[in-house]
Amino acid sequence: MELGVGLIGTGYMGKCHALAWNAVGPVFGTKIRPRLVHLADATDTLAKDHAAAFGFEKATHNWRDLIADPDVAIVSITTPNQFHAEMAVAALEAGKHVWCEKPMAPAFKDAMRMRDAANASGKVAALGYNYIQNPAIRHIKRLLDDGTIGDVYAIRLEMDEDFLADPALLFGHKNQSASGYGALDDFGVHPLSLIATLFGNLEAVMADLSKPYAARIDADGRPQAVETHDCANVLIRLKSGISGTIQLSRTAWGRKGRIALQIFASKGTVTYDQERMNEFQIYIAEGPAADQGFRTILTGPVHPPYDRFIPAPGHGLGFNELKIIEANEILNAIDGRPAHLIDFAAGLEIERAVHAMAHSHKEGHWVSV
Amino acid sequence: MELGVGLIGTGYMGKCHALAWNAVGPVFGTKIRPRLVHLADATDTLAKDHAAAFGFEKATHNWRDLIADPDVAIVSITTPNQFHAEMAVAALEAGKHVWCEKPMAPAFKDAMRMRDAANASGKVAALGYNYIQNPAIRHIKRLLDDGTIGDVYAIRLEMDEDFLADPALLFGHKNQSASGYGALDDFGVHPLSLIATLFGNLEAVMADLSKPYAARIDADGRPQAVETHDCANVLIRLKSGISGTIQLSRTAWGRKGRIALQIFASKGTVTYDQERMNEFQIYIAEGPAADQGFRTILTGPVHPPYDRFIPAPGHGLGFNELKIIEANEILNAIDGRPAHLIDFAAGLEIERAVHAMAHSHKEGHWVSV
Amino acid sequence: MELGVGLIGTGYMGKCHALAWNAVGPVFGTKIRPRLVHLADATDTLAKDHAAAFGFEKATHNWRDLIADPDVAIVSITTPNQFHAEMAVAALEAGKHVWCEKPMAPAFKDAMRMRDAANASGKVAALGYNYIQNPAIRHIKRLLDDGTIGDVYAIRLEMDEDFLADPALLFGHKNQSASGYGALDDFGVHPLSLIATLFGNLEAVMADLSKPYAARIDADGRPQAVETHDCANVLIRLKSGISGTIQLSRTAWGRKGRIALQIFASKGTVTYDQERMNEFQIYIAEGPAADQGFRTILTGPVHPPYDRFIPAPGHGLGFNELKIIEANEILNAIDGRPAHLIDFAAGLEIERAVHAMAHSHKEGHWVSV
Amino acid sequence: MELGVGLIGTGYMGKCHALAWNAVGPVFGTKIRPRLVHLADATDTLAKDHAAAFGFEKATHNWRDLIADPDVAIVSITTPNQFHAEMAVAALEAGKHVWCEKPMAPAFKDAMRMRDAANASGKVAALGYNYIQNPAIRHIKRLLDDGTIGDVYAIRLEMDEDFLADPALLFGHKNQSASGYGALDDFGVHPLSLIATLFGNLEAVMADLSKPYAARIDADGRPQAVETHDCANVLIRLKSGISGTIQLSRTAWGRKGRIALQIFASKGTVTYDQERMNEFQIYIAEGPAADQGFRTILTGPVHPPYDRFIPAPGHGLGFNELKIIEANEILNAIDGRPAHLIDFAAGLEIERAVHAMAHSHKEGHWVSV
Repeated sequence: MELGVGLIGTGYMGKCHALAWNAVGPVFGTKIRPRLVHLADATDTLAKDHAAAFGFEKATHNWRDLIADPDVAIVSITTPNQFHAEMAVAALEAGKHVWCEKPMAPAFKDAMRMRDAANASGKVAALGYNYIQNPAIRHIKRLLDDGTIGDVYAIRLEMDEDFLADPALLFGHKNQSASGYGALDDFGVHPLSLIATLFGNLEAVMADLSKPYAARIDADGRPQAVETHDCANVLIRLKSGISGTIQLSRTAWGRKGRIALQIFASKGTVTYDQERMNEFQIYIAEGPAADQGFRTILTGPVHPPYDRFIPAPGHGLGFNELKIIEANEILNAIDGRPAHLIDFAAGLEIERAVHAMAHSHKEGHWVSV
Repeated sequence: MELGVGLIGTGYMGKCHALAWNAVGPVFGTKIRPRLVHLADATDTLAKDHAAAFGFEKATHNWRDLIADPDVAIVSITTPNQFHAEMAVAALEAGKHVWCEKPMAPAFKDAMRMRDAANASGKVAALGYNYIQNPAIRHIKRLLDDGTIGDVYAIRLEMDEDFLADPALLFGHKNQSASGYGALDDFGVHPLSLIATLFGNLEAVMADLSKPYAARIDADGRPQAVETHDCANVLIRLKSGISGTIQLSRTAWGRKGRIALQIFASKGTVTYDQERMNEFQIYIAEGPAADQGFRTILTGPVHPPYDRFIPAPGHGLGFNELKIIEANEILNAIDGRPAHLIDFAAGLEIERAVHAMAHSHKEGHWVSV
Repeated sequence: MELGVGLIGTGYMGKCHALAWNAVGPVFGTKIRPRLVHLADATDTLAKDHAAAFGFEKATHNWRDLIADPDVAIVSITTPNQFHAEMAVAALEAGKHVWCEKPMAPAFKDAMRMRDAANASGKVAALGYNYIQNPAIRHIKRLLDDGTIGDVYAIRLEMDEDFLADPALLFGHKNQSASGYGALDDFGVHPLSLIATLFGNLEAVMADLSKPYAARIDADGRPQAVETHDCANVLIRLKSGISGTIQLSRTAWGRKGRIALQIFASKGTVTYDQERMNEFQIYIAEGPAADQGFRTILTGPVHPPYDRFIPAPGHGLGFNELKIIEANEILNAIDGRPAHLIDFAAGLEIERAVHAMAHSHKEGHWVSV
Repeated sequence: MELGVGLIGTGYMGKCHALAWNAVGPVFGTKIRPRLVHLADATDTLAKDHAAAFGFEKATHNWRDLIADPDVAIVSITTPNQFHAEMAVAALEAGKHVWCEKPMAPAFKDAMRMRDAANASGKVAALGYNYIQNPAIRHIKRLLDDGTIGDVYAIRLEMDEDFLADPALLFGHKNQSASGYGALDDFGVHPLSLIATLFGNLEAVMADLSKPYAARIDADGRPQAVETHDCANVLIRLKSGISGTIQLSRTAWGRKGRIALQIFASKGTVTYDQERMNEFQIYIAEGPAADQGFRTILTGPVHPPYDRFIPAPGHGLGFNELKIIEANEILNAIDGRPAHLIDFAAGLEIERAVHAMAHSHKEGHWVSV
């Protein structure tokens, strides 16, 4: 059974969605087979070129045409954040399933609109939180659920990259408050998606945001005050009683895709770093003391759905392949089966936490989520 | 421009080829677009099921039908090694391009037949040595070529997995001499493909093969003498004057996909391990002594063709994506452009080295390659 | 020139001081030679046994006798924290140099008394913050001072061990508020000593303390409420404008002596972990992008005073050897030369920060230091 | 009970011995207390200066005076290798215990003379193979002995440093055949000491020696042919049936003190690297497959005799502290207790293996040891 896919946006994540829709069938042997039907980009030329490159049948400069296309059953939205709400709501109202990149929207009320539209539509409405799809993260979830490491009491999460680390970079969109708070919404949502998946909801937060570089030179050589915060340190408390921290930086020289996770529990410890996404570490306090240590476990076929890609362990999946797993979960959801996804309702809680963090920074004290 | 692909064999590597042919177009935006036309498997039912799962149009239990199919321009051969020669020669003689999994053939004379058929055909005839396609390995090649680490004088290569490590495993095909020498041809060809790519040809070898477990129980509970050697240690000398070692094991508990490479040169050292395929290490003897150390470099868009997959560094490619790169090189070769591949002629030199190693083990002294 | 040493306390740190005083002469070829004169322990028998084992000439159960001994010029104080103030003040008033283990005293006013006594005495009064003596840390300080990594804007420090990780451990002294706040004073002072050495003073703090286990069984099998906080997460702001975090745990399974440091600056990043105390990592944003990565640097003779121990690099110093370096710094100070130490005045600022952190936890908002 | 120590030689290892003799008493609380009595160096001035620095009572330029000194019961020999035999034999004949640095002597017949003198004397005659004293190595020995990892079938050892890596270094003693074979005797003896301790005797060897730099410039600017081999690759077979390799380099840029050990056995794998001497890795094939991985174990008090230095785990010993453990073993041997040492008889087997390796290189085939 085929289902038509429409893709709006052709940047980093646009290509990533296209590759995932193209690959999910043969990788998972899915019953539903996505067909790459319609692609929308800023101009007709861009749209045509990308449609040809990615293998879509039709191209348009007008995303509303794509949404109106009766051959399209699923819409992938990978445009800049400020367009998500309008497009997602329109697609849902047109009766399409929606796969929208994170975060939902700069303004909380727009995110709420998206959630409401999803509820009203009865369609699948999922967000692109692909890190939760990693077989390593899924196995960590099993370790938590089956009690292997006991009761979790503390967590620490760090997300760091260095694309804004160079002080000589020109003043740009990400330095303007129009783009959001800074690291908090740009990055914070990823650790929050892991927390939502592994540990449940937040109760209270207390954030400290900072600006490594107060000003940057613009294209005309004039200094402009930076309006966003590239770094954030956050104290968190979860409803479950877990204490923790989230630390974020878009200016951390040398970090390229670090999402480091430390989980402390009554029987052991688990650590993970996205930069080495095919492994994780467990320490379990059992057996002879002289032989206890952190185990580095390479993911393999015993960590599903790794097995759908490669039958041999330790050979490694890539970032893009997490998106293929996500696409398969969306097909599961469309097919009415249980799906491991962050839908618009769960995503709204992530956005709520982000806004609470920003608020706590301004207030200088704890804020309930 | 479309080109029809036929796939013979649907195991580990069969699926890997199917995924690569399916993905190479959108990933690389190739001019030539492979079309998945024909799939051959042991029975019609198996062939049909796999064709449906992988997205091939036709299915057959008879691989000769596939080769005879005028819609097929490229044949992927992923069957057990003993079938490679017959299929590859037939395909080349039928005027098809051939992408054949490694190694070429258990018997050297069959490998020669393949090479001769390739030469006679004028078609692209490439072997599935995908580890050479890793952006990390390609960058290491640039470091060697541009003199960054000076003159290489020594190398060490290790390839280890543990799929035969359990002494309780039943006596099987890989324990019988019909399967070949053991680790030497099963694994040795991969390090040899890296040596061929990075350092050139071997001059002489001296191997010591060993059997961790002299016997295994068969399905009837009777002990059977193991005929193959699961481990091999090899001294090597290259024509360029480089000295080195190759060390192989199919019984190395805990190693899942280790291909460890150490390169020692007059200005620095480079190391790499396939189990962490998205990074490599360089030590360069320059700058203040107090600040010198091994640099761990995460691959990114500055290490092509990583950029064709992901525009952000440190996000990681997977093993299967090396095969997509390889598929693109095959399209390059078909299109008459320079291609980074090990063709049947280069592959024959790898097989020659394997046989020389086996010979040196028997003789107990150095053997010229 | 000989100088008599008295040692009060013979536990973990007592032996460590004894070994350091014994070794510092031959390691550094010091002008002043410490002579192990007098040892005080709880009973005469204990004192005599330890004096014999460690090589001290005299033994006493009465530490005041030791302080009154005219042969003693330097007093090492390694008793439990609550005795530090009385002993240190007495020793200083008796005209002795004092080397006191950290922290100064549970009560801030006692720490102030110690600082005042030190000021009044004119003698050397140093605290046992030996982690700052690591050649790796000293080199990191040079990297900060000479501008190699640019301007620091953010730091993260973690200190974790697991000696209280087992929930089955009986209720004991460290679980009672008489022992202090918990991780905050037990551990927090170490990261604070690194901050004082590398980055200067704190301006404001905001802490969140937590108890992984609310109660523990006592020796009679009755549950007792745990009064101290084994974990602490702290947001910090420094006078220099640096933002950061300190994260502490005495219950982190698998962590044995982790003091992890991340330093983010405008030209690069530095990381360090005490569990691998003979190495550190630097990332510097210079040279070809494709060759940039974190360098792991093994300490060696180019990182003084490593050279006083071993002339070959990468051979490794031990924890106890940091104490030998510290002893040498004390001899430097006694000799009137510049010394790399945390004296009672600097130590008081560390204690001030700890109390401010505890206060901020209670208040739920930022507190100035 | 005191025992007088004489030290001949004051270089790298001379200081190391002095520090060990000075520290062993307080660290181990030994019954026998070494007294630093007599030091011999090339001139009286040098001897006096070093005696003062290291804390020896007497000084001489004539090592025979030291050996004749009735206050001296133990002689540490740390002079260049060519002097070992004469000094050790003289000391043993004078009824002294001898602690001699490795290797025994450049010529095998001199090493035999040393062994014979040791046998004739009835005194303790030990070699300075301190790497076997590491608590990590001792624990690995226990893991082998108690069957935790099953039957060992393969080993790989590498020893690499970079003190001769720079091709611009002037032609010197280590480049002349008078210094020995090169890496083989300079380094090879260390891996061989580990093999002797952990796995028993060698049966046959096959070596390939190489010269990274065929010539070096001497102090007069003239090129001189390098006579020694800075690199060696050796195939080994042990009497126990284990197969393996030893790989050595004195020109491996970036390696500072690497002695890497891989042990493959029927139930698991153990790895170790001297550059991180406070940890080792074990993989044991038990428990859920999805949770199996290499465990990194930090040494601690549960790995004796670490506990004699520090009561807390993961705090780390240093290279010099291995020598203190070795000194304690010598005191054990003198005291008639079991001692973990390589004596002159065991050391002779190591030298025998080195000469067999050199011979096998010349012959180009396997040589029995």
